[in-house]
Amino acid sequence: MCADSPEVVIDLDAVQRNFAIATSIAGPDVGVAAVVKSDGYGLGLNRLIEPLVAGGCRTFFVADLSEAYRVRDRSTEATVFVLAGMKRDHAEPCRKNRFVPVCNTLAEAVAAAEGRCDYALNLETGFSRFGLGPSDVRSLMHRSLPQPVLVMSHLACADDPANALNELQKNRFVCFSELLGPTRRSLAASAGLFLGPAYLFDLVRLGSALYGLNTTDLVPNPFMNVLKLRACLVDVRHVHAGATVGYRSTFRASRPTRLGILSIGYAHGLAWSLSNRMIVEIGSHVAPLVGRVAMEYVAIDLTDVPDQLCRPGQWVELITKDRPADAMARAGGTVAQEVMLRVGAACRRSYLAIEHGKEA
Amino acid sequence: MCADSPEVVIDLDAVQRNFAIATSIAGPDVGVAAVVKSDGYGLGLNRLIEPLVAGGCRTFFVADLSEAYRVRDRSTEATVFVLAGMKRDHAEPCRKNRFVPVCNTLAEAVAAAEGRCDYALNLETGFSRFGLGPSDVRSLMHRSLPQPVLVMSHLACADDPANALNELQKNRFVCFSELLGPTRRSLAASAGLFLGPAYLFDLVRLGSALYGLNTTDLVPNPFMNVLKLRACLVDVRHVHAGATVGYRSTFRASRPTRLGILSIGYAHGLAWSLSNRMIVEIGSHVAPLVGRVAMEYVAIDLTDVPDQLCRPGQWVELITKDRPADAMARAGGTVAQEVMLRVGAACRRSYLAIEHGKEA
Repeated sequence: MCADSPEVVIDLDAVQRNFAIATSIAGPDVGVAAVVKSDGYGLGLNRLIEPLVAGGCRTFFVADLSEAYRVRDRSTEATVFVLAGMKRDHAEPCRKNRFVPVCNTLAEAVAAAEGRCDYALNLETGFSRFGLGPSDVRSLMHRSLPQPVLVMSHLACADDPANALNELQKNRFVCFSELLGPTRRSLAASAGLFLGPAYLFDLVRLGSALYGLNTTDLVPNPFMNVLKLRACLVDVRHVHAGATVGYRSTFRASRPTRLGILSIGYAHGLAWSLSNRMIVEIGSHVAPLVGRVAMEYVAIDLTDVPDQLCRPGQWVELITKDRPADAMARAGGTVAQEVMLRVGAACRRSYLAIEHGKEA
Repeated sequence: MCADSPEVVIDLDAVQRNFAIATSIAGPDVGVAAVVKSDGYGLGLNRLIEPLVAGGCRTFFVADLSEAYRVRDRSTEATVFVLAGMKRDHAEPCRKNRFVPVCNTLAEAVAAAEGRCDYALNLETGFSRFGLGPSDVRSLMHRSLPQPVLVMSHLACADDPANALNELQKNRFVCFSELLGPTRRSLAASAGLFLGPAYLFDLVRLGSALYGLNTTDLVPNPFMNVLKLRACLVDVRHVHAGATVGYRSTFRASRPTRLGILSIGYAHGLAWSLSNRMIVEIGSHVAPLVGRVAMEYVAIDLTDVPDQLCRPGQWVELITKDRPADAMARAGGTVAQEVMLRVGAACRRSYLAIEHGKEA
């Protein structure tokens, strides 16, 4: 018997394994950092740190100081990079807690240096967002600041290996970073892992792939699925051929139809754009969504599903290993990261612990 | 100087006025209830009750028991209908707190009666979701249960006045409910208010319109805008003609361009599907989103905006009176309710208090 509210189940073992898989792909000379910004892509930053540290992860990227503290609370040793940069009044907390601001401007780098903080430098190489451009780099060369501990940039089209912007960004990155003298360098994130060794430099920042997303549509996906989403069947009814379902009657039954109602809707992060456009799993069977996704509910067509699975209280799975967030994103016209963030933030979360493969 | 995180500003005065507007449209013989399910459509149920009660609202619809308690904590007198129905073990909390379960099955109605709870009955008239059908109604007629305090149903196409299903649902509703004997009746929600007096019965359940949404595209919208969404400009840079912006380079500058970066992304509920598809307001000026919405950031084209507004720290408005959630929904390919729920749940909320029109 399922609970009334939908649930995301997060496999911490798979997160740990994905970190190991990326480490293996990157090779022995390249470090791998975990990107756990936006509350661990909506999966719960607090629960991700311990298994990642246990799996050998020593470097984390977070969105802001509040997330940095959450990592530090769970790992006194980790290197924590703060993507929001060096804000006013951040010198003392960064110095005290050994947080490393990723400085996006010359002024931020100067503030970090004056505050005696380690700092990273973000270079703008073609994403057109944040980071120092060529004139900033030239200005920086003429100042006697301490070296940054990391120089980084972000690829705009890493999931499109044929895109010429990748090489252009890499060449700019090499050029700018060499002007700054010897330091650790990071260009690639998850998709960049597959652009070849020239893109890996010293550190890969692993976000999407850590959570099992298949950003470059690799077949098979080298990473393990982390997320399941399931919802409770709360109503079953029979309608005659010709009956319509839900708002604006967007589904019309072409035969006598057994309908199920799932207690999940767009309030729980199931996108309205998935209306009439996805398949769910019930045991080893499947059923299509029919009609529009409503605020708290959506209908499915259970006509072809065996009777014993068609009872209120039955769990129905919407994101699974075979139908991952990537597939839901394609069906809903968005990206898998948005799918994961939405359901992760809006649904009750449960975690499969590493030791026993059981819900913790 | 704005804060780093995006903010929704909720006008409680407008909520109260919308309740009054609906009451006026409904007329003296029809009651109006406030639908505050899903945490008040994402705007924060707790803050909505007091202004609504002060505005004369005596009846609320909530999703489940936990929301019912939150209403009761703020109004000892209110009638609270619980849409999730009569669940196991709900008899005592419903009786003690005078919550009224909206029973969706014969079994729920029997359980409510046996538990000596007031109950409402939901009738299925064409939405194909929940509620008693004709055979259930016949069965109920032969049982000597106490009368329900309310009989209700829900229109599937009320926002499409020409749709024949509206009249069909109304006729079924009249027919079924008359079989059950004299009792209060409710069919219409926000859009149903505009289908004419025959649809109003005894009680209108006001959800979307309470929050200012224009579900039937009325010109002008008779309801007041409740929601603003604003985000902080955190980076301004100039790029040359031909430069591309963001993931997959989906925007290419056709001229030397001043770009701004807003600290709002799909992690804050700004739909990825809005990429390159909406306009924001800066002071009395406007600027288009350019490039894809990213997790925490999105770019805008500031080239045509005066210099003094193009500084980091400037507030930029994404949902306003002139560009309400309805418009954002059209641009993003969804419904306004989803827009409101997403940003309301993901962003910091502030409230304009009624007494002074000031942020509380």
